[in-house]
Amino acid sequence: MPFIHNHKENIISDYLAGCLSLYPHLEKHPNLPLIYHKNHDDKTVPILSGGGTGHEPAHIGFVGQGMLTAAIYGPIFTPPSAKDIYQAIRFLDKGHGVFVIIKNFEADCLVFKQAIQKAKADGHAVKYILSHDDISIIPNHPFQIRGRGLAGTVLLHKILGSMAHQGATLEQLEQEGFELATKIATIGFATKSSTKPRAALPLFDLEKELISYGSGIHGEEGYRIVPFESSEKLAIEIINKLKLHFHWNPHDQFILLVNNLGTTTDLEMGIFLNDIKQLLEIEDLDIPLVKVGKYMTSLDMTGISVSLCHISRLNWLTHLQEPTQAFAW
Amino acid sequence: MPFIHNHKENIISDYLAGCLSLYPHLEKHPNLPLIYHKNHDDKTVPILSGGGTGHEPAHIGFVGQGMLTAAIYGPIFTPPSAKDIYQAIRFLDKGHGVFVIIKNFEADCLVFKQAIQKAKADGHAVKYILSHDDISIIPNHPFQIRGRGLAGTVLLHKILGSMAHQGATLEQLEQEGFELATKIATIGFATKSSTKPRAALPLFDLEKELISYGSGIHGEEGYRIVPFESSEKLAIEIINKLKLHFHWNPHDQFILLVNNLGTTTDLEMGIFLNDIKQLLEIEDLDIPLVKVGKYMTSLDMTGISVSLCHISRLNWLTHLQEPTQAFAW
Repeated sequence: MPFIHNHKENIISDYLAGCLSLYPHLEKHPNLPLIYHKNHDDKTVPILSGGGTGHEPAHIGFVGQGMLTAAIYGPIFTPPSAKDIYQAIRFLDKGHGVFVIIKNFEADCLVFKQAIQKAKADGHAVKYILSHDDISIIPNHPFQIRGRGLAGTVLLHKILGSMAHQGATLEQLEQEGFELATKIATIGFATKSSTKPRAALPLFDLEKELISYGSGIHGEEGYRIVPFESSEKLAIEIINKLKLHFHWNPHDQFILLVNNLGTTTDLEMGIFLNDIKQLLEIEDLDIPLVKVGKYMTSLDMTGISVSLCHISRLNWLTHLQEPTQAFAW
Repeated sequence: MPFIHNHKENIISDYLAGCLSLYPHLEKHPNLPLIYHKNHDDKTVPILSGGGTGHEPAHIGFVGQGMLTAAIYGPIFTPPSAKDIYQAIRFLDKGHGVFVIIKNFEADCLVFKQAIQKAKADGHAVKYILSHDDISIIPNHPFQIRGRGLAGTVLLHKILGSMAHQGATLEQLEQEGFELATKIATIGFATKSSTKPRAALPLFDLEKELISYGSGIHGEEGYRIVPFESSEKLAIEIINKLKLHFHWNPHDQFILLVNNLGTTTDLEMGIFLNDIKQLLEIEDLDIPLVKVGKYMTSLDMTGISVSLCHISRLNWLTHLQEPTQAFAW
């Protein structure tokens, strides 16, 4: 099946041109792979996030008042360069420093930390948080949580973005971010791997009627591949993993985010959501907010991830409910 | 690749249960395949639409204040029965009659018209409009427009829904609907056919790297199958067909709706949108509103349709811009 595009080297710029034509609050930096919020209030701390392309609507869809100030991007499934991130920090710092949200992948950490170190050496106030919501395990290492940054990262974007918009300092964002990142967990499954545009082969290969638990967002294989049985069985596995992680009590308050990893149909999303919600109801949890849709995808991967955020501070819910300009929230 | 579900016969009810849990303004009728707006203002004319399942978020996603009053559904790609439609009309008529929007497919017309006839014989005031926005041709019959009801139907839902909410009579809805339906045109392409859940075969079969122009939303083959060349070539074919249809003049005002037919990635949507918008710019048209996303899908079909609505009455734009509760607008 063809991937709809013009020239391979223009996939990202053509996509961005389409997006920018729809959303006048977004602007492309003339020299950097950076989309930023045009009317950002310079009296507040700017928030930068990003990573490789291929996770649309992340991260451009989360840029706007009340969420991210800017999103930096690299090629498909490849982080931007440390040099570009460094230049982006310089560009964004209007005297209140820059707060950076990094998805915990080795390649991302490497370049973001290099850039932050260099910016700090120049005198820029920069703080950052690692998003490590992934609770899936390394295959055959049942106690080693992978801790990658997955769809739960978007909840960090929203809560910290709203805080920054309301005037939080760099230190307050760091402190709240550390606490918050430990309260978010994500786990999912895939029924089909993503395929890099114009490459015929999926990155991992599932036979027909198999599913892979705990797959990543760059085609990384999951922790277990089993035959598909039912949506309910998928939901039971997912909720069990989340329960083991949180050790929740009845009436604990959680935010639920059910994320389409790319090309899952709405029918499947609704069916699976129904199973997840029924299992959570049995657990007697308090779920005041549910988000369902495409937040952090992996190109044309088919599958769903489930994120829960334990609302241990009441203002987190308020920040999630604040309006934002970001088009994909 | 498995289709995520529990029991085959519960695909639709499980999906609806998931949706209903998210949107408290929606209610399922206890005995009919009907989702309706719970707090519909009984002093206004109710609008009913619907058809087979498999087009999510249509039609449930367009039910709510300012759009549809109710959506009736049948099995996958199969219209509801005339009996159920008749009962739905009886249920919805609170003294102001019922207005029905029918997608122009032979099977749909048959059952909807039967139901309307029976309801009228009972004394219900019922008027209807056929949505026939498809401008693709029958293969090898270059002058026979198919005139099926495709994604442009959603613009009828929105404009007539807003008019009804503001107090339009049954006669006004009919009159405006007739006029409006002739001003909407849709044409699209597919890179992959839809597959019925749990059936391994696509309904039409495209070899790798081929695309089909003018394919329908039930797996019907298009008017021409050609090798994929570029997004720009696709956009040129689509815009040419629309131009031939409308014979537009510079500064004519149009609404643009770019519809994901199911499992197209956001990257592809953005790239194609960029090409479409550039071609429309050359034509010097006035496009005050652009909608991009999933509106009328065909299960897991990959492809995009483009709808244009010629705004020949200024209030149509106002009605499109009015807020609505419907979750998929």
